[in-house]
Amino acid sequence: MSEPDKYQKVIELAKRRGFFWPSYEIYGGEAGFLDYGPLGSLLKRKLEQKWIDWFVRRENVVLIDSAIVAPEIVFKASGHTAHFTDPITTCKKCGRKWRADHLLEEQAKISGEGLTLEELGRLLAEHGVRCPECGGELEQPQAFNELFKTTIGPYSEHVGFLRPETAQGMFVNFKRLYDLVRGKLPFGAAQVGRCFRNEISPRQGPVRLREFTIMEFEFFFNPKKPECPKLSEVLGEKLRLLPEELIKRGVEEPVEVTVAEALDRGYIKAEWSAYFMVRAKHFLNELGVPDENQYFREKLPGERAHYSAQTYDQVVKLSRWGYVEVSGHAWRTDYDLKMHMAHSGEDLRVFVPYGEARKVKRLRLKVDKARLGASFKDKATLILRLLEVTPAEEVAEALSREGVYQLKSNGETFELTREHVEVVEEEVEEKGERILPSVVEPSFGLDRLLYVTLEYAYTERGDRVVLRLPRDLAPIEVAVFPLMNKDGLPEKAREIYLSLLREGFTVEYDESGSIGRRYARMDEIGTPYAVTVDYQTLKDETVTLRDRDTWKQVRVPAGRLPKVLRSLFRGEISFEKAGEPLQTSG
Amino acid sequence: MSEPDKYQKVIELAKRRGFFWPSYEIYGGEAGFLDYGPLGSLLKRKLEQKWIDWFVRRENVVLIDSAIVAPEIVFKASGHTAHFTDPITTCKKCGRKWRADHLLEEQAKISGEGLTLEELGRLLAEHGVRCPECGGELEQPQAFNELFKTTIGPYSEHVGFLRPETAQGMFVNFKRLYDLVRGKLPFGAAQVGRCFRNEISPRQGPVRLREFTIMEFEFFFNPKKPECPKLSEVLGEKLRLLPEELIKRGVEEPVEVTVAEALDRGYIKAEWSAYFMVRAKHFLNELGVPDENQYFREKLPGERAHYSAQTYDQVVKLSRWGYVEVSGHAWRTDYDLKMHMAHSGEDLRVFVPYGEARKVKRLRLKVDKARLGASFKDKATLILRLLEVTPAEEVAEALSREGVYQLKSNGETFELTREHVEVVEEEVEEKGERILPSVVEPSFGLDRLLYVTLEYAYTERGDRVVLRLPRDLAPIEVAVFPLMNKDGLPEKAREIYLSLLREGFTVEYDESGSIGRRYARMDEIGTPYAVTVDYQTLKDETVTLRDRDTWKQVRVPAGRLPKVLRSLFRGEISFEKAGEPLQTSG
Repeated sequence: MSEPDKYQKVIELAKRRGFFWPSYEIYGGEAGFLDYGPLGSLLKRKLEQKWIDWFVRRENVVLIDSAIVAPEIVFKASGHTAHFTDPITTCKKCGRKWRADHLLEEQAKISGEGLTLEELGRLLAEHGVRCPECGGELEQPQAFNELFKTTIGPYSEHVGFLRPETAQGMFVNFKRLYDLVRGKLPFGAAQVGRCFRNEISPRQGPVRLREFTIMEFEFFFNPKKPECPKLSEVLGEKLRLLPEELIKRGVEEPVEVTVAEALDRGYIKAEWSAYFMVRAKHFLNELGVPDENQYFREKLPGERAHYSAQTYDQVVKLSRWGYVEVSGHAWRTDYDLKMHMAHSGEDLRVFVPYGEARKVKRLRLKVDKARLGASFKDKATLILRLLEVTPAEEVAEALSREGVYQLKSNGETFELTREHVEVVEEEVEEKGERILPSVVEPSFGLDRLLYVTLEYAYTERGDRVVLRLPRDLAPIEVAVFPLMNKDGLPEKAREIYLSLLREGFTVEYDESGSIGRRYARMDEIGTPYAVTVDYQTLKDETVTLRDRDTWKQVRVPAGRLPKVLRSLFRGEISFEKAGEPLQTSG
Repeated sequence: MSEPDKYQKVIELAKRRGFFWPSYEIYGGEAGFLDYGPLGSLLKRKLEQKWIDWFVRRENVVLIDSAIVAPEIVFKASGHTAHFTDPITTCKKCGRKWRADHLLEEQAKISGEGLTLEELGRLLAEHGVRCPECGGELEQPQAFNELFKTTIGPYSEHVGFLRPETAQGMFVNFKRLYDLVRGKLPFGAAQVGRCFRNEISPRQGPVRLREFTIMEFEFFFNPKKPECPKLSEVLGEKLRLLPEELIKRGVEEPVEVTVAEALDRGYIKAEWSAYFMVRAKHFLNELGVPDENQYFREKLPGERAHYSAQTYDQVVKLSRWGYVEVSGHAWRTDYDLKMHMAHSGEDLRVFVPYGEARKVKRLRLKVDKARLGASFKDKATLILRLLEVTPAEEVAEALSREGVYQLKSNGETFELTREHVEVVEEEVEEKGERILPSVVEPSFGLDRLLYVTLEYAYTERGDRVVLRLPRDLAPIEVAVFPLMNKDGLPEKAREIYLSLLREGFTVEYDESGSIGRRYARMDEIGTPYAVTVDYQTLKDETVTLRDRDTWKQVRVPAGRLPKVLRSLFRGEISFEKAGEPLQTSG
């Protein structure tokens, strides 16, 4: 990178001016936690609001806000208690714990992504990887579950977890949400909220946190009608993609293709994913990231989450870390709904009517419950429920080929034979069918996006910092200064400050230091406009309005300020048209 | 109450139309957790934004957003690990656990508030209180800590807690925040965020939750300059108060006094509290609660939190439960800062300069560290730090009177004698002094406020429900309907719908059912305005605009809709002035 220390500059600015800093500093800090200060929390709220505006208000998506703490069954069903793990190894000598895959990468330069615990252990031993702290030998890696655990209520055996994603809130509420949108597919359900992952080794700063905010939505569609009607709007749009197919052939740079090509070539499997990936690209444009500094990288099968049939990470180029993921676009299929259906016993399928009733031949599973109970004991009910949502064709095919059907559920495999389940054919009249919707999930990391926005806004002009934040995200919208601290100027300036407050603007009043210093303080935090009250104001009620990026100034009647500012924020007028031009100064 | 089942009606509406419902319904629910649906989450965000607008943007208060999970030391310092408890009793027969004070109230009609565990146990036995489930005898009550516990990182011995209030975020960050406001008192720091209290017996609905959202701020001021300069604005305002003094004299109804009287009579001890209580009253007015349905009740010493020198609860009349707390106004003094100073070793005092340097006689504590160590072992450092923030006068007085000074810290008492600490007098020149700010804390429960807003907005007109939400809080701002589902009306209506979306409104499009039914659906969720596209629209580009509360209709040119709606929401024009009047229909 041309500027290797930009990260440090942004972090320093973030601390000094109150965007964010490490949590619990007076107690020596707690790795993986971040506190947002006055400017950061305003910026964060504006980013949330903008995301909601883009992906909820303007799409066929509803917003929800569900609980953070969940009973164990929820994450058992979703597979997180079984699969949401990191490989951890313990030093035999000092007892310290480490991410096994990270050590392998650091000491042996071998990627540990997607390796099994056994493979990891073998490679650690083969390459002589040791404890970075004391040089001791390492134990065989074990799975460490990243869920934060707690207990609910006065009975300590009632286990609960902090959610690692907001998505399960949408899945467990699917039935209600489907009713609320009056039973129509497709639709989406979104959530912005705090999530928790007990990372073994969180990184400094806002990139890998243990507590963070996710903005994501689950978009539910009929898998038999996977067409996205909005696709026509984006078919010609270009996406920079690095699909699995190319990665496997050794390609390291993304290719630029149109959405049409990406779908034709099978790079992107779900149309709705393609549509939302375009929206995500534009969203990042709005935060200041040009096309050439972002692309979508497909996760390889071993890297994908347990629920995903295809995942693209949207990555953005950052000064220190190269390309970093800011959003994930997973095709979760019907995995989650199916699992919650099996674990809760609630039918989460939706009824999709045919045009007219049909006589159809159907394969049906006939289960011998007694046999099932005898073979599988307390798992029998779960198996029964899973079979209800398993296509009979799949079972028939396996039984005829191998005489056994392997039913998989969150890490367990149950071997079913004709003894347990028979496949029978029957003719039935059907008015429609009950289906489980398929789901694509665009998921954004708010903390990273906030950092990305700051880094891309960070510019220097001479020895001064100008934070060129998108105007609609600026935490302070306008500053008001009296030119001098006397002659009634502060009183007049405070009056204008109060009137802008009343009009709904987020305003800062500042009367300390030279006017140049005050402009500089505002440039540094990205305040788009500054109003200065001077001696002419006392004569003709006009003020100086200054633009952050061009440092241009115009003269505006004080009474017209709210209207002028609103038009400027909406982009309806150019700054030059906002008033009488003045000579530019620093 | 005149309408005993209003609660039920509101809860039913909330579930049916998607404001909120119990979490994890498909798994049988989890008591104390609530999920907000599409309308509820929009309403919640608007309530948050309004609160921020009132108490942050328009006051000398900054917003922060700190971590939910905290290491143990934070809540050890704040006293929550020791004091944040409920009395719990276990049935000797069936093992079920109960709130001891609740059982006493239910079965013996005796208030358990503020009683010690011993007193509770004695009263339970005396009055023959039994297990409500099986009639078994009850064990001696024990303290149950309400903090949700977890562990941070791969070492399970590193204990963390979910915050039960957001306040500690402001206290642990006080130094940074003080620097960010450029070292000036008074100022406030606010936070809106999720909090967790592991209630033994959470109530149904949104009133007593285990996970909830708090909006609160800590207002820091110099205890030697406790005057509130804004007091003059509110001195004549009336407050309905039920102060401790009157409660003790058996008064049960609040008295109405001016702020000036409340301060004169000593009902309210801190001027800043009085000011913010008036603001809180007006805030509730804005949510639809008139003065006569709210008042402030002082908490008795036994009911107050461990950190508070005075607390008033703002209570609001609700249909089912009578008066329910919606905000608390605690004077936390310097308790929290003092405790974090002692536990972290960081000096959290701020330097307040005198006008000019003074020669003063000072009492100073001279500590014998060796003796302290010998007597108190690993507690010696804590004691040393606590002594640093203890007024020497207090120690001198106790030593001379009783020969011993009892130093208290979170439930422990350390007895110090002249052997440990001596008081010496010295003359020093001082340019100023280092003080710990005093703190008043207005704290609002967002979930309760949301429920209160719904209940006060809930009205019936004939057999229809009209939710008269404050217009600025309505989740859906405007609805667009085609009168008929043919002749190009839907196309025109969708065009108007999209143009309003582009203009930033939250809009719903609906074409199903009769127009009357569609109006009714919107009335029920509080949508202030509905736009109908009819045959005249196709001729002259005007639409019908309908008002939720009066059901009046006016004719407005479609192109002027954004401007007209904006003026209506800002209250700049009356509905009658919004266009050409039409005949009113249902």
